[in-house]
Amino acid sequence: MPSIKVAILGFGTVGEGVYRILQEKRDEIKKSTGFTVEVEIILVKDKNKKRMPIKGIQITDNFQDILNNPEIDIVFEAIVGEEPAYTYLSDTIEKGCHIITANKKMFAEHGPALMKHAEFRNVQIGYEATVAGGVPIIRTVTNLLSGDQVKRIQGILNGTSNFILTKMRKEGSSFKEALFEAQRKGFAEADPSDDVSGMDAFRKLMILSSLAFGEQPDWDEVPVVGIDHLPSNEITDAAKEDYRYRHVADIWLDEKGEPQGTVGPALIGANHPFFNIDGVDNAVIVETEYLGSLTVVGPGAGMYPTGSAMIADLIHIIRQQEAVLIPN
Amino acid sequence: MPSIKVAILGFGTVGEGVYRILQEKRDEIKKSTGFTVEVEIILVKDKNKKRMPIKGIQITDNFQDILNNPEIDIVFEAIVGEEPAYTYLSDTIEKGCHIITANKKMFAEHGPALMKHAEFRNVQIGYEATVAGGVPIIRTVTNLLSGDQVKRIQGILNGTSNFILTKMRKEGSSFKEALFEAQRKGFAEADPSDDVSGMDAFRKLMILSSLAFGEQPDWDEVPVVGIDHLPSNEITDAAKEDYRYRHVADIWLDEKGEPQGTVGPALIGANHPFFNIDGVDNAVIVETEYLGSLTVVGPGAGMYPTGSAMIADLIHIIRQQEAVLIPN
Repeated sequence: MPSIKVAILGFGTVGEGVYRILQEKRDEIKKSTGFTVEVEIILVKDKNKKRMPIKGIQITDNFQDILNNPEIDIVFEAIVGEEPAYTYLSDTIEKGCHIITANKKMFAEHGPALMKHAEFRNVQIGYEATVAGGVPIIRTVTNLLSGDQVKRIQGILNGTSNFILTKMRKEGSSFKEALFEAQRKGFAEADPSDDVSGMDAFRKLMILSSLAFGEQPDWDEVPVVGIDHLPSNEITDAAKEDYRYRHVADIWLDEKGEPQGTVGPALIGANHPFFNIDGVDNAVIVETEYLGSLTVVGPGAGMYPTGSAMIADLIHIIRQQEAVLIPN
Repeated sequence: MPSIKVAILGFGTVGEGVYRILQEKRDEIKKSTGFTVEVEIILVKDKNKKRMPIKGIQITDNFQDILNNPEIDIVFEAIVGEEPAYTYLSDTIEKGCHIITANKKMFAEHGPALMKHAEFRNVQIGYEATVAGGVPIIRTVTNLLSGDQVKRIQGILNGTSNFILTKMRKEGSSFKEALFEAQRKGFAEADPSDDVSGMDAFRKLMILSSLAFGEQPDWDEVPVVGIDHLPSNEITDAAKEDYRYRHVADIWLDEKGEPQGTVGPALIGANHPFFNIDGVDNAVIVETEYLGSLTVVGPGAGMYPTGSAMIADLIHIIRQQEAVLIPN
């Protein structure tokens, strides 16, 4: 049975999660796809940094080592930020490799271009992990688009904001206290501005817009409000009336069939599907023509949830290739 | 571009939903799969019954007309009950056709045998519509099984029971009043015993067990309790304490790795994902090793939701076949 060789770009939380699952589930993946998946090479920023022991795998800080390796079939990308990730992935697609990315910032901006490039080069892109971590919302929407039509998607797409809002409501904490707690627990970055300003949720919303509607609204025309200016007492006052503030990203087709979006805090009543979504969970409501309304809730981040989303992409890509390569 | 010819067995609510979506979404399906899907023949019980006008399609009450038609590629089955559905589908698989079924009663009992038969004959079975109507739980669990492991599934799987419990709680109705209202609204059958006794939820749970764990527990060893003996005052008393009764079907792997299940009313607290699931919605929580906990909520029944689940199966089957048949 042939093997599939993969590279991992970036070895932070997500990259390590991918590596771990590939090791731990080696036999299961072989059983379910018929292929052994081998991690061939890992790209890191600093080769001398202390990390978990990795045997028999090339560790490099030079992306050219991956580009020049003719054996690589699929590249996992778990780098943060637009560049050099976008350039790396463009080069990888040009080389003819499939890519699987968790990089929402890069993919919101460059996803449409990468998708076109991938189609041209006849390779696939997995990007389940770019939106809502472990929640399989990309696959779910993709499937719903088969013979149905998506009309609107609303989401709690930033776990950090939701954790902070939950803590402010339940414990009457100030924004600063709750943010500090989120950082202490590892839910928020040292620089949390993308999370609390709404930019992170906005980017995920743009990825969903491309998927569901084939286009994104003009970025400047989407109002984006974060949770960083929401007074603590408004949150606790609302809770007394059985309302809860959630940070909601919302995208829908207007009467002209063009996507319109908003991102910001919203007051949610007790019967709304978002009412009970506390902590770092993400939740997405998809409204379609035939199905009506579907809600999906799960972990929005984390090494294993995000890693497992990328592994699901991997298996999907292998299966599709397998059907083409080895018809029975 | 070639066309795909399908037959529909049964022309009740679900069969008609499939037919309607195939007509309404003809162009979209062609665009997304590359194939025109033509309904060739519909099997009905009574040819003389008044129904929506259907042009240019053979209406028959004789299943042999379908078996003897060499053009049929895929058969939709939307009949109620085990027989003759099981015999029809066995014959259809033997003939080499793919099948898509919404028949939970038949599939809970005979699904494992049909799956083996289909594998042997190299055809596919779509059964998304057998569990939780429009909620894509079969596809979601199938995807989660790629590189992850399902440990437990809990579901509100019977919309009729959930509607009745909701009405009893909110309006203090008796069981009989709430059941009558469910029947008046078309949510419950004239004979609602399978719904309110828990048998319907039990069968769906067995289908999920086969999918997630590769086997079903011994049917006799699964305690099944319905909502038909739950006193009205217990429901309203619980509501005062901020608890709600839900009818929950639950399946998990025990320490020996064997599936164990229970079906019955459960008291649900305010922070549980099932707390807010009111009316005819279904909800399923899937717990896995890596992802943690994923909740999916949506319409458990209805012409369009259930029909659209079957159309999603259709498109999935076409795409998989297409990959084998027409590699690019």
